[in-house]
Amino acid sequence: MEKLIIEARVNEYAMRKHNPNVPWSSEEIARDAAACREAGASIVHFHARQENGAPCHDAGRYAETIARVHDVCDLLVHPTLGANTLAASKEGRLSHVLEMAKDKRTRPDFAPMDMGSTNIDAYDPVTRRYVTGDQMYLNSTDTLLYFAKEIRAAGLKPCAVAWNITYLRQALAFHEMGLLDDPIYLGLTLTEGKVLAGHPATAAGLDAYLINLPKTVPVVWTVYNYGGNLLNLADKIIAAGGHVAVGLGDHPYTELGAPTNAQLISKFADIARKHGRGVAAPGETRQILRMN
Amino acid sequence: MEKLIIEARVNEYAMRKHNPNVPWSSEEIARDAAACREAGASIVHFHARQENGAPCHDAGRYAETIARVHDVCDLLVHPTLGANTLAASKEGRLSHVLEMAKDKRTRPDFAPMDMGSTNIDAYDPVTRRYVTGDQMYLNSTDTLLYFAKEIRAAGLKPCAVAWNITYLRQALAFHEMGLLDDPIYLGLTLTEGKVLAGHPATAAGLDAYLINLPKTVPVVWTVYNYGGNLLNLADKIIAAGGHVAVGLGDHPYTELGAPTNAQLISKFADIARKHGRGVAAPGETRQILRMN
Repeated sequence: MEKLIIEARVNEYAMRKHNPNVPWSSEEIARDAAACREAGASIVHFHARQENGAPCHDAGRYAETIARVHDVCDLLVHPTLGANTLAASKEGRLSHVLEMAKDKRTRPDFAPMDMGSTNIDAYDPVTRRYVTGDQMYLNSTDTLLYFAKEIRAAGLKPCAVAWNITYLRQALAFHEMGLLDDPIYLGLTLTEGKVLAGHPATAAGLDAYLINLPKTVPVVWTVYNYGGNLLNLADKIIAAGGHVAVGLGDHPYTELGAPTNAQLISKFADIARKHGRGVAAPGETRQILRMN
Repeated sequence: MEKLIIEARVNEYAMRKHNPNVPWSSEEIARDAAACREAGASIVHFHARQENGAPCHDAGRYAETIARVHDVCDLLVHPTLGANTLAASKEGRLSHVLEMAKDKRTRPDFAPMDMGSTNIDAYDPVTRRYVTGDQMYLNSTDTLLYFAKEIRAAGLKPCAVAWNITYLRQALAFHEMGLLDDPIYLGLTLTEGKVLAGHPATAAGLDAYLINLPKTVPVVWTVYNYGGNLLNLADKIIAAGGHVAVGLGDHPYTELGAPTNAQLISKFADIARKHGRGVAAPGETRQILRMN
């Protein structure tokens, strides 16, 4: 079985109320990335953030962050398109990535493609109320066709993300159309807590994806748990040949004493070794994903 | 195991190219409904259609059709909200149903609630091209909250429809909020052919739903196969205690010689008897679903 690809999801839009170790600034993200690399990660996924933690959509900040990461370690870099740019045009959502790809100093390795659309209102199971009622995360087929073409033209590897089986089928259609190269780097989204848009973070929620993976299409699949603890499924994922994408962006891990991203990742590296897989270095991840 | 609820999905927006037996006019739908009742159906789901088969959004036509169905048989009636009214307001989408519910002659028994949003572009696997690129089927949480409240106030039973696990989770949240009564009448959507928005019409596509059904929530689940032959999964569904929603609206069944809806339904009734379940009459379906 191939070595485990650990993607560090260092911050998303997480605040520091429950865990002060979430990196926000370019410098913090770079320092965190280097520590995650030491702990076993081969990819860092980040969202640019303002000084107060608010989302930052400044292309310059993205570029500065990637340059700093490149300065301190050899992690592969996977920036977000920015969840708060939903109202933007498809060109606007991707432009910072395409711009950064032109310069080796700021060049990312991956770009995400969420392969469908869904309601994404938060639901509070304690009060039994929706927090919002009109939030949708929309990625039209036309938008996805544009992303696939441009991400390939820029020489980056798309991370095709599924939030449910409908997204998985759209990803497989794109592969059949020749728009996603072998192997598909496929993110399987589980969600816990207030977000119901992914599969539940249970064995059944994961199995619902796995039993629907095609046998004839090369897929390298990785699992997120947005809003919950991914360790609960780590043995199952790693034993089944999957990979993990994990970090304080998804969950503060207060139940583990609010660790740093690197401390968290070292736990997954330990489990990979226990299963005889070991962790993939960035160069090995490139090979597994057949990246240039 | 309870008797099998067969819902006849008599026409949707199917044309007659592959099967001339699709009913369009109110009279045709009523005549077809009566034959489906004889064959074992207890619910009829229909879309109003114009003389040439085009979608009809005339509230009067819906009312006329239900009145005619009531005249000729005791089938429970489940009208659509109209797939082509997507651009309409939430009030506009439901108004014909609420209006009809006021008069016993035109009163429906069910109204559908598709519990989420998705891309719904058709994909042609032969040419490997999307037929459209901007089609989304949107049901915001606010819209669904409105539907749940109004459908209950009108005394109708909602059919909560899942196109994937995300929809299933939203349906379960609505149940937890007390907005869906026990048991949930839950439609599990499989799609075949050009529509990729549901789960694949395979054992794995169905199992992905079934392993995620909650053990503590009363659910009466039924299965559609939009775009394909539901008979392939009939034994599995019926043995597992599920119900079926099937008809020429979903698939022309040319592989069976282009049968009528009633002829098709009789095949499912035969399978129900083979499994020792028998078919539920309309009154028995009311009891199973605890309808007034």
